[in-house]
Amino acid sequence: MGKKVAGNLLIIGGAEDKKGDCAILKRFVELSGGKAGKLVIMTTATKEPEAVGKEYLQIFGRLGGGQIEILDLPSRTEAKGEKAVNIISEATGIFFTGGDQLRITSILGGTPVNEALARAYKNGVVIAGTSAGASAMSDTMIVEGDSDSAPRKNSLRMAPGLGLLEETVIDQHFAQRGRLGRLLAAVAHNPYVLGIGIDEDTAVVVGADARLDVIGSRTVTIVDGKEATYTNVSELEPDQNLALHGVRLHVIPAGYGFNLRNRQPLI
Amino acid sequence: MGKKVAGNLLIIGGAEDKKGDCAILKRFVELSGGKAGKLVIMTTATKEPEAVGKEYLQIFGRLGGGQIEILDLPSRTEAKGEKAVNIISEATGIFFTGGDQLRITSILGGTPVNEALARAYKNGVVIAGTSAGASAMSDTMIVEGDSDSAPRKNSLRMAPGLGLLEETVIDQHFAQRGRLGRLLAAVAHNPYVLGIGIDEDTAVVVGADARLDVIGSRTVTIVDGKEATYTNVSELEPDQNLALHGVRLHVIPAGYGFNLRNRQPLI
Repeated sequence: MGKKVAGNLLIIGGAEDKKGDCAILKRFVELSGGKAGKLVIMTTATKEPEAVGKEYLQIFGRLGGGQIEILDLPSRTEAKGEKAVNIISEATGIFFTGGDQLRITSILGGTPVNEALARAYKNGVVIAGTSAGASAMSDTMIVEGDSDSAPRKNSLRMAPGLGLLEETVIDQHFAQRGRLGRLLAAVAHNPYVLGIGIDEDTAVVVGADARLDVIGSRTVTIVDGKEATYTNVSELEPDQNLALHGVRLHVIPAGYGFNLRNRQPLI
Repeated sequence: MGKKVAGNLLIIGGAEDKKGDCAILKRFVELSGGKAGKLVIMTTATKEPEAVGKEYLQIFGRLGGGQIEILDLPSRTEAKGEKAVNIISEATGIFFTGGDQLRITSILGGTPVNEALARAYKNGVVIAGTSAGASAMSDTMIVEGDSDSAPRKNSLRMAPGLGLLEETVIDQHFAQRGRLGRLLAAVAHNPYVLGIGIDEDTAVVVGADARLDVIGSRTVTIVDGKEATYTNVSELEPDQNLALHGVRLHVIPAGYGFNLRNRQPLI
């Protein structure tokens, strides 16, 4: 875990404060270089790119962002364009809005913009995402799955994500939508991945040293299946319930961290 | 854990099937002796004892119950009565309906009926409870606490329960109301207790051998804090968030069990 962590990620559980202190969004502006930064707002996930893009543009401006640009790539055609690649290449911070994570991956996946994003990340550019933009960060992402229900095998759909944070699966709106069940089901499929459930108005900052720090008003729940002793996930009939024994779970509020390399919480 | 487990408990996460197979309620009737049984429906938790009592009376009759009686004890006065004590003393199965767990303990606590209940339990009489009736089973019960939210210290109110299942704290409507946070907070207060979160239409049967078996359509989540490495629960300011590291978590569906004595899941 984390050996390949290169740049800086800010992964937000959705519904981050946009009117008060805006602690999380402010962190994005700061990490991206503040007044000297070049911020890009990626609205691919949402079907209301104008309204959503404009809202973040105003907020980032108010919070002291320098040059701020909205990059709307509504289809694969635009994601192949040289102009888009240039914008990404010059950015110091890139922000993915919420919406549908499958729009992000199905539109950007395998395009020159995706390659530019990967390059930017390796060069230390800050990549941030909220809600759908958070889910898309991991290798394999949760596309949909019942919230507030017992973990079942077939309630869960997963798909390849952007792969910026490897060996993880990220869920958002975590406590607020009762998503423990689907995160456990995701981890049961391959306990090699670490489950990271991020509450609303809460975020993790992941640095090149594979250290994860929690910021924001609620908590992050980490599900480590590495030492799990049993699961029935491979034998389940559709609609049967998951069994999963011996998962390690950590609740991490702001001010605490987690070492992704050795999977230990930091006090 | 479990050394003092004496009788049989059937602890239901609420919203159990009342129209289809009624698998859980049927189990109660069977455990209580079927046609030869004497079932008592305790409606103390609810403010609609007539309607609720009558519904269970009809269901238990339909499922093959023998003698069935509703015992409504709406105040401590009735809970001191000899008649009520006699009814409890002759029962083979006692069923606590849902409602408010604080009504159960504040009305029955320390009364002759409570003593009769404890004696019945020690003699092997089946004690069942759903929803509030489930919460009241443990030593310390959750009275209220935010659902669907991050675990906070002051979102949780606990109170002494009936103490039938010792060294546990039980929560109900678990996945459906997103109650992981409050169960974790309860366990953090004293990791000596085992957290048992029961989904709707799901139940645990606990026998004298301290074996817990899951029945019903969803799952039971067990939170074991014994090996937790850190919590900030004693230092929290009101409204700060909980930190809790290294909890062991098990997801147990129907057909699987758990040994309460050594805290190991059974396959």
